[in-house]
Amino acid sequence: TTDLYPTRQAAQPTVLDRTEPVVHGSAGDGPFDAAGLADLERTGYAQIPDLVTADEVARMNAELERLAQDPKVLDDERTIVEADSVADIAVRSIFQVHETNEVFRAIAHDPRVVDRARQVLGSDVYLHQSRVNFKPGFFGKDFSWHSDFETWHAEDGMPTPRAISVSISLTDNYTFNGPLMIMPGSHRKYVSCVGETPDDNYKQSLVMQGAGTPDRAVLEEFAQTYGIDVLTGSAGGATMFDSNCMHASNGNVTPFARSNVFLVFNSVENACVEPFAAPTPRPDFLGARDHTAI
Amino acid sequence: TTDLYPTRQAAQPTVLDRTEPVVHGSAGDGPFDAAGLADLERTGYAQIPDLVTADEVARMNAELERLAQDPKVLDDERTIVEADSVADIAVRSIFQVHETNEVFRAIAHDPRVVDRARQVLGSDVYLHQSRVNFKPGFFGKDFSWHSDFETWHAEDGMPTPRAISVSISLTDNYTFNGPLMIMPGSHRKYVSCVGETPDDNYKQSLVMQGAGTPDRAVLEEFAQTYGIDVLTGSAGGATMFDSNCMHASNGNVTPFARSNVFLVFNSVENACVEPFAAPTPRPDFLGARDHTAI
Repeated sequence: TTDLYPTRQAAQPTVLDRTEPVVHGSAGDGPFDAAGLADLERTGYAQIPDLVTADEVARMNAELERLAQDPKVLDDERTIVEADSVADIAVRSIFQVHETNEVFRAIAHDPRVVDRARQVLGSDVYLHQSRVNFKPGFFGKDFSWHSDFETWHAEDGMPTPRAISVSISLTDNYTFNGPLMIMPGSHRKYVSCVGETPDDNYKQSLVMQGAGTPDRAVLEEFAQTYGIDVLTGSAGGATMFDSNCMHASNGNVTPFARSNVFLVFNSVENACVEPFAAPTPRPDFLGARDHTAI
Repeated sequence: TTDLYPTRQAAQPTVLDRTEPVVHGSAGDGPFDAAGLADLERTGYAQIPDLVTADEVARMNAELERLAQDPKVLDDERTIVEADSVADIAVRSIFQVHETNEVFRAIAHDPRVVDRARQVLGSDVYLHQSRVNFKPGFFGKDFSWHSDFETWHAEDGMPTPRAISVSISLTDNYTFNGPLMIMPGSHRKYVSCVGETPDDNYKQSLVMQGAGTPDRAVLEEFAQTYGIDVLTGSAGGATMFDSNCMHASNGNVTPFARSNVFLVFNSVENACVEPFAAPTPRPDFLGARDHTAI
């Protein structure tokens, strides 16, 4: 497969134009209307208030809490634990929950979610990745700026950015508790990063980003050009965002924890091949190797 | 002197009512009108847009930049350096600038600032502390929740919270670059903290807070009761806030750095005595021992 989005190969960062559209379907294909699709094409994201009910939020939060205390889950390599100090330990992410857990399997296959993903991607879709995220209060960690697609391309072999993430909020997102930040419009540019991918990079990069980190001068220019949108909203709402959005989140010292369900849909016409810039593909729980349509 | 606000003495945190007013003067005494004073009494803070001009902001930023590169300043104990990694080093604060630097001496004595402090405190005032702060982009550090007065009382011997801080913004404060957060109304309560003050606690506490940390259960209750205000605003504006406000700031992963001039005025009728919960007073550059009125 031709590498349309080379990264981690050159000594200098470069910025390429994205050649594919963001939205592949049309208003006739599903829940988004024409204005909603146009906004998504332009900004790279869409906010969907009240995607799920308060009851569903409560059920998913209870399930997340139960999982975070299950010794088997804690011992699983698909569970990422955040430790600020001996006293401050929290489960940050549990991956592949659409396969291991009935509650999260259901939401990952729910038409409210999948129909929107199919509409945007203009084809059948499959789950490239799923996880539940928990950002604790008082010591929630930040995530520095990155494009998910850059990692999925380099390390999972995703050919083009024909993939979209759905983040369903299980808590209220305020400006002050470390919400998602997106540089609107940045998804139309691809930042080719410097540095090679080390072996088993994911073990390190799930905790702190190394390879795949955009150059700071590029980020400064992007921030001036695109600005930064802070994505606030109530529990039960969702954000869908293009795989190539430049995004980040600050830490959280407030008492208000944040949690969400995170689902990544890829087009079956964009199924992953061999990694473009890594010795071997990441494990299945980070980037699915089974591309069967939902 | 009677200890009206005991702290760092008991094994359990307690919350006491504040007995003194916040505002000691009246509208006839100075720049704030009656509504402004009432807001300050109620919320614990006041925002003053355009306190200084764009030219003054530029001059102070240039001076801050010059100081942060002066080897003598870098080597001074009054300069606090923040190091995230070998590559990410930044001067975070330079203390006592109202005595060491002409530009900052001038603003610390400027009537636009001092008249407001006198009006709120209802008396002549002196500078308890001054500093310039710089929160870098990409790796700016957070500050966890605390009341300044708790530290000034415990470690500097400030009898009551008849002191007010003025923070003059030298950069724009957005919701996303780690701005000041205040729990409005929290200044009417005093959180007595647990734990003794170690010797020379300031050397540690300037980098990461230890003694004087409010209990998390208390902070959760405060957050529910008071909520959190995020103080945004343009460069040149100022925030004045009561010494007993519960405040914090998140880290900053955005490219937008933040800097400000920070001036603490204390009433001459509230001059510091011996520390209420520390073996010896902190150095003069953190808490002035000379209480001569401006």
